[in-house]
Amino acid sequence: MKKKFYSKENLHFLMYDVHHTEALFEYDYFSAHDQSSVDLFLDATEDVSATHLLPLFTEMDRNEPQLVDGRIRVHPKMKEILGIMGEGGWISSSASESVGGSQLPVTVMMMSSFIMGCANYSVTAFPYLTMGAAHLIESFASEKQKQNYLPKMFSGAWQGTMALTEPGAGSSLSDLATTATPTNDEYYLIKGHKIFISCGDHDAVENVVHLMLARIEGAPLGTKGISMFIVPRARINENDTLVANDVLTGGVFHKMGYKGAPIAHLIMGEKGDCRGYLVGEANKGLSYMFQMMNEARISVGLHATSISTAAYYAALQYTRERSQGRPITEKNPENPQVPIINHADVRRMLLFQKSFIEASLSLQIQCCIYEDLKRVTVGAEQEKNYYLLEILTPIAKSYPAETSILSTSQAVQCLGGYGYTTDFTVEQYFRETRIHAIHEGTTAIHGMDLLGRKIMLGGGKAVQYLMQEVMGEIEEAKKYESLKESSISLEKKVGQINEVTMHLMGIAQTEGPAVFLSDATLYLELFGLMVIGWQWLKIGNIAAKKSVERPEDVFYLGKMATLKYFFEYELPKTEGLMVRLKSKTKVTTTLNEDYLD
Amino acid sequence: MKKKFYSKENLHFLMYDVHHTEALFEYDYFSAHDQSSVDLFLDATEDVSATHLLPLFTEMDRNEPQLVDGRIRVHPKMKEILGIMGEGGWISSSASESVGGSQLPVTVMMMSSFIMGCANYSVTAFPYLTMGAAHLIESFASEKQKQNYLPKMFSGAWQGTMALTEPGAGSSLSDLATTATPTNDEYYLIKGHKIFISCGDHDAVENVVHLMLARIEGAPLGTKGISMFIVPRARINENDTLVANDVLTGGVFHKMGYKGAPIAHLIMGEKGDCRGYLVGEANKGLSYMFQMMNEARISVGLHATSISTAAYYAALQYTRERSQGRPITEKNPENPQVPIINHADVRRMLLFQKSFIEASLSLQIQCCIYEDLKRVTVGAEQEKNYYLLEILTPIAKSYPAETSILSTSQAVQCLGGYGYTTDFTVEQYFRETRIHAIHEGTTAIHGMDLLGRKIMLGGGKAVQYLMQEVMGEIEEAKKYESLKESSISLEKKVGQINEVTMHLMGIAQTEGPAVFLSDATLYLELFGLMVIGWQWLKIGNIAAKKSVERPEDVFYLGKMATLKYFFEYELPKTEGLMVRLKSKTKVTTTLNEDYLD
Repeated sequence: MKKKFYSKENLHFLMYDVHHTEALFEYDYFSAHDQSSVDLFLDATEDVSATHLLPLFTEMDRNEPQLVDGRIRVHPKMKEILGIMGEGGWISSSASESVGGSQLPVTVMMMSSFIMGCANYSVTAFPYLTMGAAHLIESFASEKQKQNYLPKMFSGAWQGTMALTEPGAGSSLSDLATTATPTNDEYYLIKGHKIFISCGDHDAVENVVHLMLARIEGAPLGTKGISMFIVPRARINENDTLVANDVLTGGVFHKMGYKGAPIAHLIMGEKGDCRGYLVGEANKGLSYMFQMMNEARISVGLHATSISTAAYYAALQYTRERSQGRPITEKNPENPQVPIINHADVRRMLLFQKSFIEASLSLQIQCCIYEDLKRVTVGAEQEKNYYLLEILTPIAKSYPAETSILSTSQAVQCLGGYGYTTDFTVEQYFRETRIHAIHEGTTAIHGMDLLGRKIMLGGGKAVQYLMQEVMGEIEEAKKYESLKESSISLEKKVGQINEVTMHLMGIAQTEGPAVFLSDATLYLELFGLMVIGWQWLKIGNIAAKKSVERPEDVFYLGKMATLKYFFEYELPKTEGLMVRLKSKTKVTTTLNEDYLD
Repeated sequence: MKKKFYSKENLHFLMYDVHHTEALFEYDYFSAHDQSSVDLFLDATEDVSATHLLPLFTEMDRNEPQLVDGRIRVHPKMKEILGIMGEGGWISSSASESVGGSQLPVTVMMMSSFIMGCANYSVTAFPYLTMGAAHLIESFASEKQKQNYLPKMFSGAWQGTMALTEPGAGSSLSDLATTATPTNDEYYLIKGHKIFISCGDHDAVENVVHLMLARIEGAPLGTKGISMFIVPRARINENDTLVANDVLTGGVFHKMGYKGAPIAHLIMGEKGDCRGYLVGEANKGLSYMFQMMNEARISVGLHATSISTAAYYAALQYTRERSQGRPITEKNPENPQVPIINHADVRRMLLFQKSFIEASLSLQIQCCIYEDLKRVTVGAEQEKNYYLLEILTPIAKSYPAETSILSTSQAVQCLGGYGYTTDFTVEQYFRETRIHAIHEGTTAIHGMDLLGRKIMLGGGKAVQYLMQEVMGEIEEAKKYESLKESSISLEKKVGQINEVTMHLMGIAQTEGPAVFLSDATLYLELFGLMVIGWQWLKIGNIAAKKSVERPEDVFYLGKMATLKYFFEYELPKTEGLMVRLKSKTKVTTTLNEDYLD
């Protein structure tokens, strides 16, 4: 039997029925595409995922990248796969036609990345990191730089990276210490260390192009003195050949999961000969990078979802095939055992996973659509899309990242003892997804982003736009008897969360920012549950409507049952969070660290 | 610096100040011991753990057991370690003097196991499984059997196991298919497969003694037809030499963590020559095994705690040493970065871990003391200890097992990107502890044990005894101003949980057992939070009392701060659980499995 690693039916339902991705094709910028061409592209993605990515899933885990003679050796099939990714147009899918891209909506590009991530997240990192780096070049670099790098990157022959993190500057980008010294030529001399650089070096490509943050000598301290450079591993010589650019690979990080992707420690300028080419204006590096951040963050949430999706289908298959125990009312040992999917607690574990992966994917599509619309709309409409994307990004990144730890853990639990063994894939999903609450900003960073920045963005406009959307969905849901209870429940929750927000704003006034932000992670979780509830109502509204015509369709009945699970088991988790967030008792901010011994 | 893997100060505080372990030595059975001899034993445990177990922690993970020529090859140092465990009296520590043991309280034996588990859980499995098997022999086997096996097992030369699980009978023991055919001799011929047998075979011992469940030919189906056998890997010949007993090692399971311990697939009777020796009476095997179950289950909870404890101290050390970022009110990048332990969210993550590991250890000591008292008391007092142990066992097993997944995950998070790498130990703790929600009964099994059996045990006597204890601690806590709020909070919770229980009893009447038990896992979590709150009040009452004399002592101030964390952040999680448990909406029990596609 073909192994199911995602649901095409559900993806189409979310893309078109729920989120009307097809409406994007009405805009000039996307008008070269239509639903059928996009579906062909996604079908091709499924094919390549099933044929090339999925079979390597376990193999790449067991044979992790190694540093050999100064180069990181990755799985030998990666070269071929990157060639396919280039030739098939995946790497250039969302780039504009002006630079040789297909100009597909970000939504479609991200969904292709989702499908691949369900098959093998490690492989997915390679092409999509190149895409991210290429996007930076397309947006901010000079024509010559575009010509020099983009064709090779789009073809899969060169890898792209985003090189931010340093040993002394992880979450604190303002402390970047890599330096760029101006020369009389068009380049700067780069010196410093970068760590945790995903796909920062490997032998499946001829060259690696780092979009690197560094500080030009004499630039201001902090975030205002950071510039962006193209720092290739091998630079293009006068006669168009490649020569080493004094970028050394100091090491490869070995990690708990996601092992197929090489994570490098890079050393620039050991020999004083590492050339970096300024992108755009000096000291604007961080603002450039941040314009890519939404996409990168949504991508992290998306892949927490993709890994959990694959884990869910593995667990679902197992619980249908494994017979163990009998119904609670059946005590006769002569009667046969039943598949464990019949046990209530197994169903609860499955519904938890399904309620997470489907609403989470829906949220990510929602964000991608805002991203696409932001690009093609103007004026008030563009502003609205901008604000909605900004306020949802910390949720779209962190809610899936955190929940996927629990979701994959429940997939392990569904398999019992076998789930803990390497004979099944669920333990690997559990290990793989643990990275997502860490990279592209830890959960704490996103909590502070939401509460400390996004809630007051535009004087509260971002929240207002979101609440309009949520309330609109609630009103729609009230029309359906089957959704009435859930819609009232979410409406009540929205009111309560507004109260919590007001309470916290009061704390900000009386106690200052440190106390105000001390439980931002809990606020993020609270807000996230509301947002996921909103997505479930959105899904529910469509399912309820479709059910009128096809009342026996298990697909829509399944949506309604999963929605019910979410409102019965997950949304109530807001209760405990609100108790704490409304409490005036200080805990962490008054702690003496010696108490922790 | 010596690496801290547990807190001796906290262990002594819990054992003596909070739980008065020293009172056990007043009983005849334990009178050979006193606090100072016990402390020497625990100090020796710490020494051996630091010297022999801790250094192998990572090494054993990277070199997992392998099946070579029909034998599982484990770490070469295991033989020496088991020799030390035998010679130092660890394996026989709690066995009675009549069979050559030290007759130490279970509490002390378990705490030695805790210390070792903090250093290296995989190693700990070997001696303590032998101990468990020896305990079965001591309790139920014949004198001759005791003489044949116990000395070798206590010396560490022979391994003991408990062999229950089969490919077709994981959680469903009633479906055991291994058969025992009577012969004209004193033995039975055993035939069947066992899987997931911890330490089921390895080359650090001369022999392995399986305490195996099997069904005598013609015995009734289900749990009533299960007998217990001693099935040695090599049997003792007439002339006292060892000969192979037709127990083959079919394989070794490779797993996500806890890799140092070999988990075997065993095949008995392939050549028709596997002899098993009946223990006690026929068809009573499961009841014998269950008399050991409390201890085994508490041990699992204890080791979820021990792994999380080691992870906590690793995270604590890192967050003190790693400088990153600045206080929220400090925007000047010229000022130095601060250790991340100063950030509120890092403190929250640390307090979460500390609030879990300390109360959980306290609960396990509590259970061990009940176990010891059950042994040395009579009449009403014995009954009380029996009931308290019975009702607390599912909590003491499952609450730590589930919470340790989150606790070790937060330890990983404290280290950021480094936490995901194999350069630090936290990722290994995260992998190791995941087994505990699975082995010795999954969490779902314990939920059903609590709600379906223990709540009504003795016509509700078990709950009554527990509530008396909890209310006693609440009354005591009300005397202290610093505990007043928490005690009122727990009192309210106790009332609410009683209401939930009554509501569920009503469901049992009207809807039947399947609906009644469908959310037993949630009930287990709810009940667990109350029990942990009780332990925190117990700790708080002592700390508050001690603080009167030593108001500046950071140790007691730390207890009060951690208690406050628990009541502010963790106990409120009961709110969401109660919403669901009181809801009348059926979700899992009315689900059509096709909805899960």
